[in-house]
Amino acid sequence: MSRIIAFDVNETLLDLGGLDPVFERVFGTARARETWFSQVLQSAMTTTILGRYHDFSSIAAGAMTQTAERYGVSLSQKDRDAIAGGMRSLPPHPDVAPALRRMGDAGLRMVALTNSAPQAARAQLDNAGLSDFFEEIMSVDMAQTLKPAPEVYNTAARSMLATAQEMRLVAAHAWDIAGAMNAGWAGAFLARPGQVWDPLFDQPDIIGATMDDIATAIIATDLDTDT
Amino acid sequence: MSRIIAFDVNETLLDLGGLDPVFERVFGTARARETWFSQVLQSAMTTTILGRYHDFSSIAAGAMTQTAERYGVSLSQKDRDAIAGGMRSLPPHPDVAPALRRMGDAGLRMVALTNSAPQAARAQLDNAGLSDFFEEIMSVDMAQTLKPAPEVYNTAARSMLATAQEMRLVAAHAWDIAGAMNAGWAGAFLARPGQVWDPLFDQPDIIGATMDDIATAIIATDLDTDT
Repeated sequence: MSRIIAFDVNETLLDLGGLDPVFERVFGTARARETWFSQVLQSAMTTTILGRYHDFSSIAAGAMTQTAERYGVSLSQKDRDAIAGGMRSLPPHPDVAPALRRMGDAGLRMVALTNSAPQAARAQLDNAGLSDFFEEIMSVDMAQTLKPAPEVYNTAARSMLATAQEMRLVAAHAWDIAGAMNAGWAGAFLARPGQVWDPLFDQPDIIGATMDDIATAIIATDLDTDT
Repeated sequence: MSRIIAFDVNETLLDLGGLDPVFERVFGTARARETWFSQVLQSAMTTTILGRYHDFSSIAAGAMTQTAERYGVSLSQKDRDAIAGGMRSLPPHPDVAPALRRMGDAGLRMVALTNSAPQAARAQLDNAGLSDFFEEIMSVDMAQTLKPAPEVYNTAARSMLATAQEMRLVAAHAWDIAGAMNAGWAGAFLARPGQVWDPLFDQPDIIGATMDDIATAIIATDLDTDT
């Protein structure tokens, strides 16, 4: 049978660069957006290691406070709302919709699996015009822990009535693919600019520079053409 | 009874800025040092969440490979050796030795507790002239997982024949203090330039901008003057 293809959302499907104008206005430099997102990931991983759970919106808001302190900027509620709003209306990367259409037309089952909170994830994919490609939009909230914790991938597979071997994750982050493969899934690493594989972990069988490359490889590998 | 004071090593006692000249030579900018260390932490946390263990030197080497790819730089073995060697001979922050001396003279028991591998940790503190301040130099290697995993702090307390309540961690990283407090220890956050508290986690009772501030607060709080 064909594999079910799960897609990470932030940076994989959606372009965080959409936040650059608001970061530039608030912090004086778009580089603060990278400082912020890197802190988001660090706080998310810390809370996971401590065995706690905070939803991604709270983590993102906390990281905003830290970024403001680092840059010596005073953040108004309006600034916070602008960043949170920008997060919910990120543009899709231009290679995404054509590749998803191609995979859907080929008969693959596709779902989203994101660290974003459920309502935020739905808003993000609606605003980007991508929701209709997915059978399910799954948030880590259902596992009450964040990627790359094994429980997330296990819960997602169970909710699709699938085994780990029937799942593949597509993501632009090595840590996320490493987490999925650790849970027995296949992976596909989308090496977007600035994203590199982490040599601590086994490489997935699919690595590509664009979603188009990834789609071609997945269609060749995961589609059961006998049924 | 007095608390045992455990000190984180990298960035808390030792100045990673000592690596800037080699990063500037190899990558053309000292900023690559921050990219690298941020990747070190991300890889360390990922491996911890996956329930695996790699020693910190391997993690640091892997992050060097990733940083080289990100900067489009080809890294020679000599460059790698220069960075690894630099990591073992970081200078102490100037506020460290006087504050440690003051705490030792006051009668506090002090240990080091670092993510660095055992031999690396010993070399780092020997080279910085700080080893003699510590009763023990403890590496996470003894717990076979990395900070901020609870097992590290639990193992460290047990090896000192102490309860969690008898331990305090001094560190320049919010995620490390959050881990220690999660394990029942007290914390002291050293807010070095660029280091800010993470609002996801409860603040420790001691926060200071210099090791001198931290020493003063710890001597006032943790020293049992009745014995």
